[in-house]
Amino acid sequence: MRIARFSIDGNVAFGAVEGDRPDELVLDIIKGIPFADFELSGTKVPLNKVRLLPPVLPNKVVAFGRNYADHARELGNEVPDAPFAFFKPSTSVIGHGDEIAYPSFSEDLHHEAELAVVIGRMCREVPRERVKDVILGYTCANDLTARDVQRREKQWARAKGFDTACPLGPWVETDLDLAAANDLTVQLTVNGQQRQLGRTSEMIHPIEDLIVNISEAMTLLPGDVVLTGTPAGVGPLHVGDEVAVTIEGIGTLTNKVVKRG
Amino acid sequence: MRIARFSIDGNVAFGAVEGDRPDELVLDIIKGIPFADFELSGTKVPLNKVRLLPPVLPNKVVAFGRNYADHARELGNEVPDAPFAFFKPSTSVIGHGDEIAYPSFSEDLHHEAELAVVIGRMCREVPRERVKDVILGYTCANDLTARDVQRREKQWARAKGFDTACPLGPWVETDLDLAAANDLTVQLTVNGQQRQLGRTSEMIHPIEDLIVNISEAMTLLPGDVVLTGTPAGVGPLHVGDEVAVTIEGIGTLTNKVVKRG
Repeated sequence: MRIARFSIDGNVAFGAVEGDRPDELVLDIIKGIPFADFELSGTKVPLNKVRLLPPVLPNKVVAFGRNYADHARELGNEVPDAPFAFFKPSTSVIGHGDEIAYPSFSEDLHHEAELAVVIGRMCREVPRERVKDVILGYTCANDLTARDVQRREKQWARAKGFDTACPLGPWVETDLDLAAANDLTVQLTVNGQQRQLGRTSEMIHPIEDLIVNISEAMTLLPGDVVLTGTPAGVGPLHVGDEVAVTIEGIGTLTNKVVKRG
Repeated sequence: MRIARFSIDGNVAFGAVEGDRPDELVLDIIKGIPFADFELSGTKVPLNKVRLLPPVLPNKVVAFGRNYADHARELGNEVPDAPFAFFKPSTSVIGHGDEIAYPSFSEDLHHEAELAVVIGRMCREVPRERVKDVILGYTCANDLTARDVQRREKQWARAKGFDTACPLGPWVETDLDLAAANDLTVQLTVNGQQRQLGRTSEMIHPIEDLIVNISEAMTLLPGDVVLTGTPAGVGPLHVGDEVAVTIEGIGTLTNKVVKRG
């Protein structure tokens, strides 16, 4: 099931996305929330009549660095032995179609396409064999990075945590199992031209390792998001660019870069 | 005013702390929340009859690294030219009297006493002269750090973001102005023995600079917390230790270290 979060006439709801043709998608409004038992209401609205919102409201976004060897090397970095993580704050999250505000304190904004794991239940110290049970589904993410600030500042709160730095969407796909999620094509285009292309099978640490690693230290909450790293091909974005992350079996997350107002 | 958050008989409320003698403090229950206009109810409960909670529920905790030169040097680090920030997640926050769970993945847990700034209103791109207007008040913090993990992992999500890594409290003092807050004694004891002693006047970047720096990048929300760095004297904690952060004009935040259950 593809679960979207949306607003229509000032109301916010979750809905199940039905249909295959992009211009004919319909939302079946969910009664309740997708983190507990829920039902489809049978009340349907065309997707092109609503505003899509970030598919979840994460309490925290945990992102892993340098999880694709080719990407680590393209920035001249060593491939780390163990995973390492940083946070993006909830204030950085935007949805499909929302605008990316070019940060005023950077002159080198970069895109980073990533598979995002959406946590479905409160958990900590998750054993490897239970990882599948704590995942609600998967969505597309763009781990936007002020590369110049990242190079200057030892910790990346500003470089990767600025407002609009974490587009998520367009919806959460709940029908992928872990084996499938660990072998998906991740692609990013800027103005229709391909810039990044990789497969999640190239991840140094697969999804199971990342969830074990972070949940060993901290409690994950329903709606928290884990970003799994970006493949090679990162590069600059400019005001006016349209950037799109497409992940096989999930969908396409599109955002336009604007001058910060 | 000293504003505490507490639970009694299963109810959670804010209260104004009245009195001077530690064993005779009383809470005047607040009608409403301290982030908007509020009144004191006149209904009073003895502080020793309630459980103190973290004085705010931060959406994010932004912490600045190496803001005291003596501390940077004691760990063999350079003193940075510009401030740099990292996040501690909301899941790491505990209150006065709560237990610190020694992280299972570390063998070198360290204390770091810090002045915490509590944000009072939603803000971004705060000009230096308006910083005073976005601050609700100040509390004590302990920026607990798994020092061995910090040395190994390039970003500090696990080293500084584990569950219980961010004790805050005992309450928020709202009567300090910026000049006063930038000149307070910060002290930390372990089992009654002094380990850290500094003054916020030794901060390389005063509070105004830190708020300008972080709000240039991201929106701060009511209840968000900014940690201002730790003075020299950081060192190890062990299971069974009682660690206390005392800041002049605010109060004392005490927590005991236990084995993670």
